[in-house]
Amino acid sequence: MSAQFPAAITRLIDAFSRLPGIGEKSAQRLVFHLIRSPDRASTELGEAASRLKSDLQFCTVCRNVTDTVTCTICADDRRDHTQICVVEEALDVIALERSGSYRGVYHVLHGVLNPLDGVGPDELTVKDLMRRVADMTPTEFILAMNPSTEGEATAAYLARQLKSSGARISRLARGLPTGTELTYADDITLSAALSGRRDM
Amino acid sequence: MSAQFPAAITRLIDAFSRLPGIGEKSAQRLVFHLIRSPDRASTELGEAASRLKSDLQFCTVCRNVTDTVTCTICADDRRDHTQICVVEEALDVIALERSGSYRGVYHVLHGVLNPLDGVGPDELTVKDLMRRVADMTPTEFILAMNPSTEGEATAAYLARQLKSSGARISRLARGLPTGTELTYADDITLSAALSGRRDM
Repeated sequence: MSAQFPAAITRLIDAFSRLPGIGEKSAQRLVFHLIRSPDRASTELGEAASRLKSDLQFCTVCRNVTDTVTCTICADDRRDHTQICVVEEALDVIALERSGSYRGVYHVLHGVLNPLDGVGPDELTVKDLMRRVADMTPTEFILAMNPSTEGEATAAYLARQLKSSGARISRLARGLPTGTELTYADDITLSAALSGRRDM
Repeated sequence: MSAQFPAAITRLIDAFSRLPGIGEKSAQRLVFHLIRSPDRASTELGEAASRLKSDLQFCTVCRNVTDTVTCTICADDRRDHTQICVVEEALDVIALERSGSYRGVYHVLHGVLNPLDGVGPDELTVKDLMRRVADMTPTEFILAMNPSTEGEATAAYLARQLKSSGARISRLARGLPTGTELTYADDITLSAALSGRRDM
C-alpha cells in the first residue's frame, strides 16, 4: 500500500543520505526541493559532483588540493619551507591561513589513523611526507591534528617517525577545547594555539 | 592571503549551499567528505542529480512523480476517481497514503501560490486540474495544503475556482498544529485530519 518513489528519486535520496549529517527525511526534502527548482539546479550539482574527483589536483609537494601542479603556498618563496605544519585535511590549511599567524608550509594527511575503519599510514600521505623530509633539512614539524583520540594517536605515530630528522616536533597548544574540530575554531583561538605550541 | 579552494571544490560547495538548510560551512564539510571518500560516492551523487529531471516523469492525470505514464494511484480502478485530494507536493501523497485513510485520487500542485516569489497559478498545475475536472463529474475536492499562510491562500484561491463544479470542497481538519509541515505529521494525526475535514 505504501507508495514508492520513482527510481530517479530513490537514487538521489540514497546518494544524499550517505552524506554525513543528512538523514532519510532531509534527503527527501533536498530531492523534492530540486524537483521544484529549475533544471539548472540539479544539473549543476550533478556536474560538479561528477567532476569533483577527476578535476581535482593535489599539490605534488604538500598534497593540498590545488588548481596547479604545485600549490600557491608551496610555490611561495617568502615562506619558511623548513617548517612543516602537518594537518588532517585541506580545510585545516584554510583555517590556519585565515589566522594569519603561520609563515611555514603544510603537509595534508587527508585523514587520521583509524585502525577500526581500516585507515593505516598507507591510506594517508605519510609516505609523501617521509620522502619530502628526506630531501631537505626540516627545522620543525607542527603536528596540527584535531584534539581527538585519533588525532592524538596520529600525532604520536608521526612524532616517532619524524624523531630521527632531529627537527623540533610540536603540537598545537591545547587552547582548543577537547572535542571541537580545528576548522570551526575562531582566528584568535587558532593564533593562541599556534604561538603556545609545546615540544613533544 | 586567504587560501582559495580549487574551482572543482568551489563549484560543488556553491551547488550544495544553494540547497535549503545547507550553509557554507556544511557545504564545505560535505565536499571534503566526498574528497576523502571513494570516487564512487561523488560520481553516483553526480549522476543521480544530473539525471533527476530528465529521468523523472509526471503522471499525465494527477502530475504526481511516476515511473510510468499514469501513476499507480490513477491507474487503480478500486479507488474513487471522483474524489480528488489536492496537495502541494509528491511527498504529501506519500504521507497521506501512509495514513491508509484515503481511497480517492490526488492532484499534485508542485508548490503553493506565492506572489512575492513570483509563483502564480501558471507556475503550478492549476490548469491541469481544471482540464481534468472539466472531463468528469467530481464529488469532492479535499484541499490538503499545509496549514501555512501560502497554503491557506492557495486553498482559498482553488475553492473559488472549483466552486462552479458543484462538488463538495473541504479542507483537512486542523488537527495539524499550525506551523508544521504535512510530510512530518504522524499517521494518526493525518487520519484524524482526514476524517474531521470541514466544508468551506
